[in-house]
Amino acid sequence: MDPIGFIGLGVMGQPMAMNLLKAGYPLIVYNRTAARAAPLAEAGAQVAVSPRAVGAVSRVVFINVADDAAVESVLFGPEGLVQGLAPDSVVVDMGTTSPSATRAFARRLAEQGGILLDAPVSGGEAGAHAGTLSIMVGGPQAAIARVLPLLKVLGKSVVHVGSSGAGQVAKACNQILVSATLMGVAEALTFARRLGVDPARVREALLGGFAYSRILEVHGRRILAGDFTPGFRARLHQKDLGIVSREAQALNLALPATALATQLMNALVAAGQAESDSAALVQVIEQLCGMAKTPPSDPG
Amino acid sequence: MDPIGFIGLGVMGQPMAMNLLKAGYPLIVYNRTAARAAPLAEAGAQVAVSPRAVGAVSRVVFINVADDAAVESVLFGPEGLVQGLAPDSVVVDMGTTSPSATRAFARRLAEQGGILLDAPVSGGEAGAHAGTLSIMVGGPQAAIARVLPLLKVLGKSVVHVGSSGAGQVAKACNQILVSATLMGVAEALTFARRLGVDPARVREALLGGFAYSRILEVHGRRILAGDFTPGFRARLHQKDLGIVSREAQALNLALPATALATQLMNALVAAGQAESDSAALVQVIEQLCGMAKTPPSDPG
Amino acid sequence: MDPIGFIGLGVMGQPMAMNLLKAGYPLIVYNRTAARAAPLAEAGAQVAVSPRAVGAVSRVVFINVADDAAVESVLFGPEGLVQGLAPDSVVVDMGTTSPSATRAFARRLAEQGGILLDAPVSGGEAGAHAGTLSIMVGGPQAAIARVLPLLKVLGKSVVHVGSSGAGQVAKACNQILVSATLMGVAEALTFARRLGVDPARVREALLGGFAYSRILEVHGRRILAGDFTPGFRARLHQKDLGIVSREAQALNLALPATALATQLMNALVAAGQAESDSAALVQVIEQLCGMAKTPPSDPG
Amino acid sequence: MDPIGFIGLGVMGQPMAMNLLKAGYPLIVYNRTAARAAPLAEAGAQVAVSPRAVGAVSRVVFINVADDAAVESVLFGPEGLVQGLAPDSVVVDMGTTSPSATRAFARRLAEQGGILLDAPVSGGEAGAHAGTLSIMVGGPQAAIARVLPLLKVLGKSVVHVGSSGAGQVAKACNQILVSATLMGVAEALTFARRLGVDPARVREALLGGFAYSRILEVHGRRILAGDFTPGFRARLHQKDLGIVSREAQALNLALPATALATQLMNALVAAGQAESDSAALVQVIEQLCGMAKTPPSDPG
Repeated sequence: MDPIGFIGLGVMGQPMAMNLLKAGYPLIVYNRTAARAAPLAEAGAQVAVSPRAVGAVSRVVFINVADDAAVESVLFGPEGLVQGLAPDSVVVDMGTTSPSATRAFARRLAEQGGILLDAPVSGGEAGAHAGTLSIMVGGPQAAIARVLPLLKVLGKSVVHVGSSGAGQVAKACNQILVSATLMGVAEALTFARRLGVDPARVREALLGGFAYSRILEVHGRRILAGDFTPGFRARLHQKDLGIVSREAQALNLALPATALATQLMNALVAAGQAESDSAALVQVIEQLCGMAKTPPSDPG
Repeated sequence: MDPIGFIGLGVMGQPMAMNLLKAGYPLIVYNRTAARAAPLAEAGAQVAVSPRAVGAVSRVVFINVADDAAVESVLFGPEGLVQGLAPDSVVVDMGTTSPSATRAFARRLAEQGGILLDAPVSGGEAGAHAGTLSIMVGGPQAAIARVLPLLKVLGKSVVHVGSSGAGQVAKACNQILVSATLMGVAEALTFARRLGVDPARVREALLGGFAYSRILEVHGRRILAGDFTPGFRARLHQKDLGIVSREAQALNLALPATALATQLMNALVAAGQAESDSAALVQVIEQLCGMAKTPPSDPG
Repeated sequence: MDPIGFIGLGVMGQPMAMNLLKAGYPLIVYNRTAARAAPLAEAGAQVAVSPRAVGAVSRVVFINVADDAAVESVLFGPEGLVQGLAPDSVVVDMGTTSPSATRAFARRLAEQGGILLDAPVSGGEAGAHAGTLSIMVGGPQAAIARVLPLLKVLGKSVVHVGSSGAGQVAKACNQILVSATLMGVAEALTFARRLGVDPARVREALLGGFAYSRILEVHGRRILAGDFTPGFRARLHQKDLGIVSREAQALNLALPATALATQLMNALVAAGQAESDSAALVQVIEQLCGMAKTPPSDPG
Repeated sequence: MDPIGFIGLGVMGQPMAMNLLKAGYPLIVYNRTAARAAPLAEAGAQVAVSPRAVGAVSRVVFINVADDAAVESVLFGPEGLVQGLAPDSVVVDMGTTSPSATRAFARRLAEQGGILLDAPVSGGEAGAHAGTLSIMVGGPQAAIARVLPLLKVLGKSVVHVGSSGAGQVAKACNQILVSATLMGVAEALTFARRLGVDPARVREALLGGFAYSRILEVHGRRILAGDFTPGFRARLHQKDLGIVSREAQALNLALPATALATQLMNALVAAGQAESDSAALVQVIEQLCGMAKTPPSDPG
């Protein structure tokens, strides 16, 4: 069996690669900062010297790197995947890349005989470790079928959203919705506190009704506890909203709630909370309301 | 057994009163427009000529009327409840009233020997009919214990949030959170459509992950179907956001997402959609994006 | 000559009354806190014990009080103006009152034989002292003609905007426009600082072009100097935006920029700056951007 | 005397080049679409076949092209200016380019012995024709001194804002401020109309006071007349706000009013008004308020 390739071993990529290895798949990995490959090497993975070297031996390669420019470099750079890739190989980009860049990359890869799937995820670092991510996939059905068993190792939900780029569009939609809901949770709990009502009780009451959301449950708990250990880091949420903003601008889309959330996330990062969970957004609202930070409280 | 009083038989009050009657409680009802009492009279309820007449025979009275002024009139008007109320009677306001007015009404009623509970609901017209409302209660524990069996007829979730006014604060928080989440759903599904991806697939993918919310499930389905039969009417959502806005102003609270949602809800009502479900908010976003209205689609 | 009445001797009313006195008009004044009438008494004004006592001797009465409730009390309270007012007397409300309340007050006063003009002002404390206010007047032309010489003592610009309430509508428009422009000045100068460009030079460049505004000139200078001595106090600007917000809500008007400005002004007051000039709004933007407060700079 | 170079003969560039010619300067011009050079050729300008050909004969070259990519191509492309430029030549970019790109271009040009000044303008098409633009200049003082007589032909106000990029920062600030003020004018005049007050009178009253701005004067007149002949086209304003948005994102700047204005400008372009003057933004507000378009009115 050809080894599965995995390029990009950051906070998300490393546990995902480890899960593939644990599930019994032979793995060849590459990371720009080589030290991050050590734990996988110890666990039995081969380590390659370049994306090109990964492409030369793998028919399926996952990539999980920082941004559009990094994806382009991994795919098409001088030491890029395509330099060595066998025809009909499938590359699965699991990072968050802009929909328009993804579509362009897929066309370029197709010209070279490869197939690009976009398969970004929701579920954060905890989901990456537990293999319970939600995976949103764009690309041709046949190629997805080939990698589906691997995706099922990584996530509990795999949805084929549409053709190339559709996975990234769904991910953008996810970030739009999560950030709007988070603003609502932050403003609601701040309103309760300022009116002298225990926000833990309010959260409990709201969880029982139409306002129920996973975000109220999970981020609400973080906010009540004042514990913003990630989770999903503010700087990554900000980066993803930047992608939405540029796509919206290019297509003349007016998205006022998303634009507002983007400003608040910028404010959170500017306040030095780049590495905090994005639920720390509540602190931006609290500061606007002239209130001290949330004291820890028992979410029950 | 003294009859239970019920004042205010609108789209929410009528099915709630009917559920109490069906559960075997004797009922005495009052509505300003007398014709709305007819179905309850046919089903066996007594009909009173004034709030005062209800108060004269009931030790527990529910009220569900339009706004702060109507509550004040029902409680303290010349033909109001307090004119005839026995000491230690409990009045349960199930409508959405401002927290500050509720607290003032509770004090005034206490001076006259009565007890006011605030017990606003979430769940809309369907929840009122099915007896599956979520009820958020503020007021003294002992009084709540007295009416709890009745509340359990009306709703599936009853949470004691805190002292007087806390139920209304929780309801305000509910409306803040629902409207922010609704903005997110509307912008996400509009973004997907404009980028050429099926919003039904996007909704399905997002329901499987961290972005899951009842609002994405229910309002998402309405948006995909283009069916805005209420549900919860836009004009009521707008009214509730007006309450939040005035409380925020009085307390110097900066709630930018809620303020934005309030403007969009104003726009929805201004567009002639006052009686549509508030999920029709998506049409305001679609218009801002220069897109025709959502065509019906199969939410799967 | 009958004395001119003046009710309400706050930060605006006192210098305005003094200017009428200096211009040679006999004056009878009333203020709820009597001590504030002392400087006018020393300068020759009569002091009345109630609005009623003012109304009994004056055919023209100015009022300048805090809010709608105060106007109502001065006009129609037990010791109100109308209790003693001669037919065809003109009452000129120079404070900022809601347009809808103004229209209702004008109708009630007309029923009692009096004429209410609304004549709110722009120009702040400095303009009140210097007699250089801009006065926006609503009401019948003939009544305005009777008081025009007095208004010209108080302001350099007097515009008859329309019928009753039109002056207050113009004032609301003024506050909408000033707050939006102020947001723009604050964001522009903060952007410049963060990009390492001297905001004083930017202001100078912008004053020479299409972006010229009095607000860039005056508030820009305050921002560069870090000196927020009022001027026009943040709490008053906030109060006025509250009026706009309630009128908008009642008429289903979506005003997203005004709603945003209202939240930022709430934040400014919540930050303890109620008595600062509203140009201190820049500090809310600076904090959102993670920047220390504007250091004093030379506006040139 | 060496001919002055002028590259980019669009709606702004053509009248600017013509003004230099009329002032007696020999001119060599280049435009990608050659036909646009014809009127200048008729008036006596030389026409070059490439930016390189311009650079080969000119020591001072103006460029006025669409966006960052076009500037890069003109400067550094295979037929770009630098291929033929003599040492110490000055290139003046009068278009709106991002500050960060401008700084990078200036460094690259310096490495090749050239000097880049950024000198974007405010004043629109009318200002370009009349030679009354406001010019905001960034770059070294000595180079500015060399081109100052030429800049004074093009504009009535020339301000040296700071080092390289400072002109573009000032231009970004200009667009921030203009769009915020425009939102205020649009919301204020819409509020007046909806409350039944003549917006022409409101504008007149506001022009006399603290709310005075050129934007209220000029865009207010356009709004009252319902005449959105540019002026400054919505699509260009949108493009410039996109530059601000990307710089803000990169630097974690939270600019909520600018973000809102950007969404409204996107909505305006999405509504098919890309070529209208940006004052047509009022139509987005009117639509949100459920109002028909502004009927023409006499601004007096």
